[in-house]
Amino acid sequence: MPRFLVYAEGAFGVPASKTGISVIRYSANHVAAVLDSTHAGECCREVIGIGGEIPIVATVEDGLAAGANALLVGIAVNGAGFPGVLRPTLHRAIGAGLEIWNGLHTFVTDDPELGPLARERGVRLHDVRRPPEHLPVGSGRVRDLAQTVLLAVGTDANIGKMTVMLQLRDALVARGHRAGFAPTGQTGIFIEGWGLCVDAVIADFIAGAAEEVTLRAAEGNDIVLVEGQGSILHPGYSGVSLGLLHGSLPQGLIACHQPSRKSFRHNDWLAIPPLREVIDLHERMCAPLRQAKTIAVSLNTVDLSERDAKDAIARAQDETGLPATDPVRFDIAPLVDAVLGFERACRATAPPSATRP
Amino acid sequence: MPRFLVYAEGAFGVPASKTGISVIRYSANHVAAVLDSTHAGECCREVIGIGGEIPIVATVEDGLAAGANALLVGIAVNGAGFPGVLRPTLHRAIGAGLEIWNGLHTFVTDDPELGPLARERGVRLHDVRRPPEHLPVGSGRVRDLAQTVLLAVGTDANIGKMTVMLQLRDALVARGHRAGFAPTGQTGIFIEGWGLCVDAVIADFIAGAAEEVTLRAAEGNDIVLVEGQGSILHPGYSGVSLGLLHGSLPQGLIACHQPSRKSFRHNDWLAIPPLREVIDLHERMCAPLRQAKTIAVSLNTVDLSERDAKDAIARAQDETGLPATDPVRFDIAPLVDAVLGFERACRATAPPSATRP
Repeated sequence: MPRFLVYAEGAFGVPASKTGISVIRYSANHVAAVLDSTHAGECCREVIGIGGEIPIVATVEDGLAAGANALLVGIAVNGAGFPGVLRPTLHRAIGAGLEIWNGLHTFVTDDPELGPLARERGVRLHDVRRPPEHLPVGSGRVRDLAQTVLLAVGTDANIGKMTVMLQLRDALVARGHRAGFAPTGQTGIFIEGWGLCVDAVIADFIAGAAEEVTLRAAEGNDIVLVEGQGSILHPGYSGVSLGLLHGSLPQGLIACHQPSRKSFRHNDWLAIPPLREVIDLHERMCAPLRQAKTIAVSLNTVDLSERDAKDAIARAQDETGLPATDPVRFDIAPLVDAVLGFERACRATAPPSATRP
Repeated sequence: MPRFLVYAEGAFGVPASKTGISVIRYSANHVAAVLDSTHAGECCREVIGIGGEIPIVATVEDGLAAGANALLVGIAVNGAGFPGVLRPTLHRAIGAGLEIWNGLHTFVTDDPELGPLARERGVRLHDVRRPPEHLPVGSGRVRDLAQTVLLAVGTDANIGKMTVMLQLRDALVARGHRAGFAPTGQTGIFIEGWGLCVDAVIADFIAGAAEEVTLRAAEGNDIVLVEGQGSILHPGYSGVSLGLLHGSLPQGLIACHQPSRKSFRHNDWLAIPPLREVIDLHERMCAPLRQAKTIAVSLNTVDLSERDAKDAIARAQDETGLPATDPVRFDIAPLVDAVLGFERACRATAPPSATRP
């Protein structure tokens, strides 16, 4: 795994840098420093409340001195290209021999200046949104696994699907279980050091890409926790979400929901249906390919008071008959217990032909 | 519209040339000749039973003499690249000034030899599977149209979704109605001379691409017939099909089915659910975004006796309560009547805010 210098120039702590903040939250030991000259000299804890003493520096050179061997570009930018000081920063980082992990839609490899420079210096470029050359078309290969596969699904995009699976993985591993996380988006890839952006592949290969990451995450594990994307009812991204469902072919689903959210992200015209209905739709859309059962509800209550959050959790339990919690705010144990109970049940009923890579 | 020389060397009349045969079936007046030296001197009718006197020729030069101004490459090839005599044929065609309409996954524009040659000669290249540069993310824009939008959906891929919409368009136009076809795949694009391969775009833009073709096909028309792709239960392609549903946001669906088919294409492990169930799933997956109603069933009975075909049509009517027929084999009138009745109902209930481009 690389030791990252997280690029966040002028934006550390604001939403544009949320990818970098997630990497610090879930993978702090792989972050050497943060690059933001407006906070240089402070540490992560002082600016974002997490990340402890990880230093914030003003230059690539200071990042190198802090032990970084890779530059992580996970910031949100407007439009294409490498705006502002990002281009000279990439230039200096490549010149200094830092690997580049780039989550932008513009690829460093294809840049007429930076691509050749990296090749000349022997620096590896990871444009994580570039799909691999040869993806298969999805064909249900996950059914042959003996492992228990779980997918996070949601009532909307950007609602906590990656978060709950990372929290579950960490809690399961801490209890001694062999649980693997399958990264399907850029933040997950930065955190794990591998994965596939399923929303960045050619449309015919969404399910095939989901199969690939699920099969790989299964290696050496008993429980596979697949990062969800979007929502099967999102007007822009539903195709990605359904391809991910039919490629990862989970036995179990974790339903993610934000109780305060009434309409879809960037689509005020579209009301979010009741949680119970969204759960039912997922199960019905999966059933012909594989019987998938929703086993728990993960709520994002970040914008609710503690009392309202607990009320929302109780309501979700009543509505669905499933264990529910906010795994960031409260104890994740109800979800961990749900996963372990489900895994025992799957193991007991797995066909003898199933394989465990 | 171009006048095509349809490339089918060594394959005219076999499944590998089915794209070209579809273009001859639905757009014969845009086909000047077919290129297949093994049938040179014959005419289309003699080899495939349709296409009348359209000549089959042995060389690009003979195609030019027959009036072609474009080469159509719609043949199925194994792997990437331009195998066999295809490359020298492309070379000669570009040299002779023919536009290239290419449906392969390998793009002529990117070829180090053919791309520069075309630019030098000022020859236009249409790599129809190359997505346009700037597609929007889907956001439900079709809801603002006053037109009636219909989408063909199916129990599987390759089951007659393009065919029924082209047959319907031709029949509606023949009756004096303003009906437009929205091409979403390569064959439809060759037939219409425009469109977007929704399965070839980056996954995040499937619905956005579907919106674009639906909005364009609506211009100057009252009824929009959107070409379907795949199936929302296909293990490889379901993401494309759902993105197409949520991007085109039809008020009406035409359900396509092949009665003899028991399992999904290239996926023997997966049984095709009952037609009624597939219809219900489509309507439920569309309902939160737009209430879509299935208005007719189109059957592909190519592999049934006439008696069995008629029995299958009667059974589909009984099972669904909808008008049904095989629009290629029998009179399409029941489907035309269903569309016109539905269009009258939509028109009567269209909100005053709806626009008609």
